[in-house]
Amino acid sequence: MAIITLTTDFGLKDHYVSAIKGAILSRLPAVTIIDISHKIEKYNLLDASYILKESYPNFPENTIHIIGINTELSASGGYVLVKQYGHYFIGADNGIFSLLFEEMPQQIRELEIENNQKLSFPTRDIFTKIACQLAEGADFNSIGKPKAELLQRIPFRATSMGDNIRGSFVYIDSYGNVTTNIDRRLFDQVGKGQPFIIELARHTIERISKEYSDVPEGEVLAMFNASDFLEIAMRNGKAGGLLNLKINDSITIRFQ
Amino acid sequence: MAIITLTTDFGLKDHYVSAIKGAILSRLPAVTIIDISHKIEKYNLLDASYILKESYPNFPENTIHIIGINTELSASGGYVLVKQYGHYFIGADNGIFSLLFEEMPQQIRELEIENNQKLSFPTRDIFTKIACQLAEGADFNSIGKPKAELLQRIPFRATSMGDNIRGSFVYIDSYGNVTTNIDRRLFDQVGKGQPFIIELARHTIERISKEYSDVPEGEVLAMFNASDFLEIAMRNGKAGGLLNLKINDSITIRFQ
Amino acid sequence: MAIITLTTDFGLKDHYVSAIKGAILSRLPAVTIIDISHKIEKYNLLDASYILKESYPNFPENTIHIIGINTELSASGGYVLVKQYGHYFIGADNGIFSLLFEEMPQQIRELEIENNQKLSFPTRDIFTKIACQLAEGADFNSIGKPKAELLQRIPFRATSMGDNIRGSFVYIDSYGNVTTNIDRRLFDQVGKGQPFIIELARHTIERISKEYSDVPEGEVLAMFNASDFLEIAMRNGKAGGLLNLKINDSITIRFQ
Repeated sequence: MAIITLTTDFGLKDHYVSAIKGAILSRLPAVTIIDISHKIEKYNLLDASYILKESYPNFPENTIHIIGINTELSASGGYVLVKQYGHYFIGADNGIFSLLFEEMPQQIRELEIENNQKLSFPTRDIFTKIACQLAEGADFNSIGKPKAELLQRIPFRATSMGDNIRGSFVYIDSYGNVTTNIDRRLFDQVGKGQPFIIELARHTIERISKEYSDVPEGEVLAMFNASDFLEIAMRNGKAGGLLNLKINDSITIRFQ
Repeated sequence: MAIITLTTDFGLKDHYVSAIKGAILSRLPAVTIIDISHKIEKYNLLDASYILKESYPNFPENTIHIIGINTELSASGGYVLVKQYGHYFIGADNGIFSLLFEEMPQQIRELEIENNQKLSFPTRDIFTKIACQLAEGADFNSIGKPKAELLQRIPFRATSMGDNIRGSFVYIDSYGNVTTNIDRRLFDQVGKGQPFIIELARHTIERISKEYSDVPEGEVLAMFNASDFLEIAMRNGKAGGLLNLKINDSITIRFQ
Repeated sequence: MAIITLTTDFGLKDHYVSAIKGAILSRLPAVTIIDISHKIEKYNLLDASYILKESYPNFPENTIHIIGINTELSASGGYVLVKQYGHYFIGADNGIFSLLFEEMPQQIRELEIENNQKLSFPTRDIFTKIACQLAEGADFNSIGKPKAELLQRIPFRATSMGDNIRGSFVYIDSYGNVTTNIDRRLFDQVGKGQPFIIELARHTIERISKEYSDVPEGEVLAMFNASDFLEIAMRNGKAGGLLNLKINDSITIRFQ
């Protein structure tokens, strides 16, 4: 049976999350529903895209991901179903897909809105229906109508200039670990194994650790995380708070 | 297979929620358990009833809803199983059913307490057993013994006087949207399409919006929500906090 | 189908919890996954062990419990699979098992780490695999290699001296109820039904209540909780905060 995941900024107190689950189960009682996160910062597409990007590849192919954030119709380019990397994504065309994927999706269907459709809760009233259709085996191309492109928001990407890499912070997790947009491939390609200095606003780091416990407690370290992005962390401490690192702040690595 | 939902004020850190799930799965490994909310404000029946009322109709008929709040036996009129509008509800007879339903339920069974029954965790030790019996197909009337009526707590209802409607705020969600007890039917019936002023403590609104994006960011609006109750909201902002609206505060609509 | 539970300090916002679920479902789409808690205080093994200890016995035998806290390989005695009291537990050998069980487990398998194994997210990359193998029916003794003993952390236990019991506080729940490590058996054995005084830092209690409602609102009481441990509570109030009780603070009961 299909798997449907939910990523929203609904929070866990209100009735919104369970309303969606009830709507899905009313149609498909045996489907598996998994919460990716409902604690996305309100209205924050960057936050939503980071969490979903780190989570969805862990699910099997053909998983259906419902994205319930910034779903107002008139504030978006419509509602869409997107197929990318073997997964399905249903949400508003509000720019999230450009933040979620390195390459823009080519397989896009625009969902059709009925004339009398109420639009106050599209995640429940529209997205779950499409998810159930897919879970029941509907063909991707039979849903809605084709759409040529999606709204783009340009995410900050790490760039290299000579022997330097300039990146930025993209996420701070609940441990205070701060993830950058600098991945191991870029680091290796620019650095070629040379010595380096990682420059933060108030701190420098001169080596890459393999584990948090490579350094004494309370000391700041840099390591590549499970997704191979450079992360600034502190063993049993909150690097983000202590070093006053903020989302979108820049980080520079100088080689040699 | 049956669906069992959980609505409690247990929070998500302690072991209570998973203890309930373990108890259910020990008896019925294939049942579907859905969390409606565990972040109900402690001891707050109005909060619990609002969230459950907005959520349960999304589930299929015959869903079994366990209500784990204010379950002390001696502080209630006993434990009950209630059938209403095609759904089952199990909880303490503490007044929640009068807040949950427009019409008082007629199908009520009082749960029998065994002599040696421990009463420190009835949601786990009593309610889950009844839920499992129902899920296994037990007949409603075979459970416990008949009960004539349930404890009543009188909720505030919106009322009309001439060309005015007087209502109150019943819930503030995590976006800061403030729901009233004024529904579209009453609004249309009293207003008959006339112009109106919605009077809040510090603010007036003179039209009903269709979407949050009908107004500029940061401006207050009134709209009918997904359940057709009037809601005071703010686009990308927290109306409740900004206007200092509180649960049970009154709101008046003057027509003409 | 098997049940797998999760107990972690990951929190509910980040992608970590859903990443684990995706990894499990990729291998076993029909398994039941239950969250015990993801809101364990960061790095706090005592907190984790208390919640898991109160929760796991509610699940059926052969349930598989994944423990995702303090999982750094170099800071632990390796990764282990433990069978105890009919349940399976997978986690780091960081001392949690000595806090979790009265008797140290005898059935222990050490998980083998492959040479090229990435170690940044062992709960996802190692523990879920073992859980899936067990869920698929693998024999306990076919997993990893035997291990003679587990790391011990000595938990505070309640002790008796003559007519006195000296214990300590082990957990404060979301209601502010404060659990001690004094169980009913020790209380009965030392007290033999004699009158007693329970001494807290700023308060004394001279009787055991049966229900929260045995006392007026706002009054402090002592009762045995659902697990038969003595608990200091307050009807509709937060005993822990009001009496300034803290984890590991001592509590004395003097009989006669």
